[in-house]
Amino acid sequence: MEEKNINIGLFDEDEIITPERLSQLLVDKKYAEVKLHVQDLPAPDLAELFSELDERYHSLLFRLLSKELAAETFVEMDSDLQHALITRFTDRELSDILDELYIDDTVDIIEEMPANVVKRILKNSDSEDRAIINRILRYPKDSAGTVMTTEYVRFTGDMTVADALLHIRRVAIDKETIYTCYVTGKDKRLLGIVTAKDLLISDPDIPLTEIMDENVIAVHTHDDKEEVAMKLDKYGFLAIPVVDSESRLVGIVTVDDALEVIIEESEEDFAKMAAITSASDTPYLKTDVFSIWKSRIPWLLILMLSSTLSSAILGSFESALPAVLVLFIPMIMGTGGNSGGQSSVTVTRSISLAEIEFSDLFKVFWKELRVGILCAITLGVATFAKVMLIDGLLLGNTAVTLSVSLTVALSLSLTIILAKIIGAILPLLAKKIGLDPAVMASPLITTLVDAISLIVYFAVASDILNL
Amino acid sequence: MEEKNINIGLFDEDEIITPERLSQLLVDKKYAEVKLHVQDLPAPDLAELFSELDERYHSLLFRLLSKELAAETFVEMDSDLQHALITRFTDRELSDILDELYIDDTVDIIEEMPANVVKRILKNSDSEDRAIINRILRYPKDSAGTVMTTEYVRFTGDMTVADALLHIRRVAIDKETIYTCYVTGKDKRLLGIVTAKDLLISDPDIPLTEIMDENVIAVHTHDDKEEVAMKLDKYGFLAIPVVDSESRLVGIVTVDDALEVIIEESEEDFAKMAAITSASDTPYLKTDVFSIWKSRIPWLLILMLSSTLSSAILGSFESALPAVLVLFIPMIMGTGGNSGGQSSVTVTRSISLAEIEFSDLFKVFWKELRVGILCAITLGVATFAKVMLIDGLLLGNTAVTLSVSLTVALSLSLTIILAKIIGAILPLLAKKIGLDPAVMASPLITTLVDAISLIVYFAVASDILNL
Repeated sequence: MEEKNINIGLFDEDEIITPERLSQLLVDKKYAEVKLHVQDLPAPDLAELFSELDERYHSLLFRLLSKELAAETFVEMDSDLQHALITRFTDRELSDILDELYIDDTVDIIEEMPANVVKRILKNSDSEDRAIINRILRYPKDSAGTVMTTEYVRFTGDMTVADALLHIRRVAIDKETIYTCYVTGKDKRLLGIVTAKDLLISDPDIPLTEIMDENVIAVHTHDDKEEVAMKLDKYGFLAIPVVDSESRLVGIVTVDDALEVIIEESEEDFAKMAAITSASDTPYLKTDVFSIWKSRIPWLLILMLSSTLSSAILGSFESALPAVLVLFIPMIMGTGGNSGGQSSVTVTRSISLAEIEFSDLFKVFWKELRVGILCAITLGVATFAKVMLIDGLLLGNTAVTLSVSLTVALSLSLTIILAKIIGAILPLLAKKIGLDPAVMASPLITTLVDAISLIVYFAVASDILNL
Repeated sequence: MEEKNINIGLFDEDEIITPERLSQLLVDKKYAEVKLHVQDLPAPDLAELFSELDERYHSLLFRLLSKELAAETFVEMDSDLQHALITRFTDRELSDILDELYIDDTVDIIEEMPANVVKRILKNSDSEDRAIINRILRYPKDSAGTVMTTEYVRFTGDMTVADALLHIRRVAIDKETIYTCYVTGKDKRLLGIVTAKDLLISDPDIPLTEIMDENVIAVHTHDDKEEVAMKLDKYGFLAIPVVDSESRLVGIVTVDDALEVIIEESEEDFAKMAAITSASDTPYLKTDVFSIWKSRIPWLLILMLSSTLSSAILGSFESALPAVLVLFIPMIMGTGGNSGGQSSVTVTRSISLAEIEFSDLFKVFWKELRVGILCAITLGVATFAKVMLIDGLLLGNTAVTLSVSLTVALSLSLTIILAKIIGAILPLLAKKIGLDPAVMASPLITTLVDAISLIVYFAVASDILNL
């Protein structure tokens, strides 16, 4: 890292107090010094510090923080830590923290807590918040409703720019963003959008209805949160309004939540494509060995068991198969797996990015068929040459005849075409029947393609070599 | 889609004019009607419309747009379309468009254009912009300098809140964001940050130095752009300042650029892990078959050729190998590949998310060794049982003896441990020598693990079965 020059006066992560030094200060009861060290730390760094600190100092350190910083830090902690702290909070303390939190953050916390803690949180929220929390908790999993924030700035259609600026002054402190504000009618129906930029550069006496943008792009509470995030990205918004089925404004999704959604979903997809059951939200080095094992073992077991299919197919043909053909089984199975993997990852990501859906099935089939044929021809020719020249001539295997090379090349070509089609179609089918397309990607398709490639190989071999 | 209810008064993508209707209106010279249909469209949708419209109408439609909308739409187009339009622009038109663009967008466009077009763009930029563009173009690939914007709001330390608001009114129109503003000294050194929210809720007479946040988190021009994006996400910023080696403010990276970076880099990683040479920025259904073929064939060829290694190993042991052991080759190779893939994807993503670096090599090794041993024991036991019960008893293969099952289970266990370590270490080594860790993930590691698993299998078999 060549960062040493840039930190004159700027925040430097390397200057954060170490957990060891911090515990020492706490043990020595040097609380004033502790406060000095932590009061200017950004909440995410402070949360990291908590996770590295021995658990017995958590409540003490937490109580030394200002109410605002304590709440901000609490939001950034992982759920185990939050749970442990809540258990030690008095009702008074819990209620104070909840007062400081944005409702969408409270909901995020609630979603990770066991039932008894959820009850305590709801009991200690004020009744208005409780009603909103309960409504948000009823939205379908992964919908816009679950990631939206209900604290936004709302203007009415009769306000002027000056009224609006005055209103912001009064309420801004409690709102997650003031940079996109919403103009609604009496029935809470969305009329238009006004940005803080518009307000700052407009004449104070103009009515809002004159400067607001009426061409509002909104999402529905039940829309998929990843689609919402992609929409924010597409239009470059800082926030997007969420409306209910009567076009009434019920919340907004802000760009930082969208960023979280996209990172989370990508990591989920990466994990699933690598046959890992769940993406951990804990960094790799901090995840314990047992958790990693637990997330990796289910698919390894399933895939190991499903390979019985390949073994069985191999078993029923093996005696008829010339020994030389066995040599190319890894190549044919490997190339089939790679070809299928390419298609499935491409299609799965396109589904995730909301570029294709089930109704595009035929278009996808037609595209992959053509790509498959092109790849099959290229690799077929290359494989034929490679088997003849490298395996036959160079490695001097006399069993490699013209018809053996032809058998291998032709089997490989057919396998590629089939693998590409299966790899592309399966994720779409999975999506249709409500399964996660990403689970269909690489490993599961590889197992299927393994079996199919063996059948193709034996079929071609028995035709060409008259087994 | 159950969106039909929410579009009362809101923007509806389904109501966008079709390309067919639009061409008809252009052919009929009904330009007023065309303007009516396109003038309120968001730029990203308009850019999509261009890509679906026949090329011969592009210049005509483009000239019907207001200068501002034309520029916004131009930025959203893919580079082929931009290139075709620039070729048809007069110097006057090109210069008008460039005037409307933010410099970071101009740089993005330049990076995709051939040399002669770059020359024309630079010639038609004003001299101040040209100097900035040239400086940005010199920053290293994928660095913060290449994604930052140079149009931000800068205050000096002697201003009051009222001065600052007045300043915003004057300059806001040309700035990408006014929501995070920067206070600098005379030498352009960064002193602190003021948000528009702070300005709006503070007393107009207070000096900025009193409300600014001096604990500034900044990045360096040469920092990796993905690390910068992750930092924006970590701290939930709308923008992060970029400073040079003398701590002078030279630009900012905004959250929408960070979102782009994260989406782009994830797609790049997905592509590489699936043995695809490059992620297309064109949606799947719009990418032509030949381009897809071109991005998929190189790795398929390389992996096909590299499987010669497995074939050669198989060839040199095969004659000594009892036929029954051949049946389990797909299972051992498959499980090895899956185990290695799990580790390599996990480690590669952790590198991408800046969670681990090369110096963590030993920690990663130690973690994967323990996870590997746990997985090896679990799967070893399961495999032994499965081979004995399913392949032996259920499928009635009399060749499956106790020592055969033991050979298979033990080989599988050793392969898993080796695969996990190789899968975790190779991406870190790749990063160290300046290669892309993602390329090391799944497919390449699978090929390597294939070869290793065969050697392990034969070694174990010859020990236990005394071949």
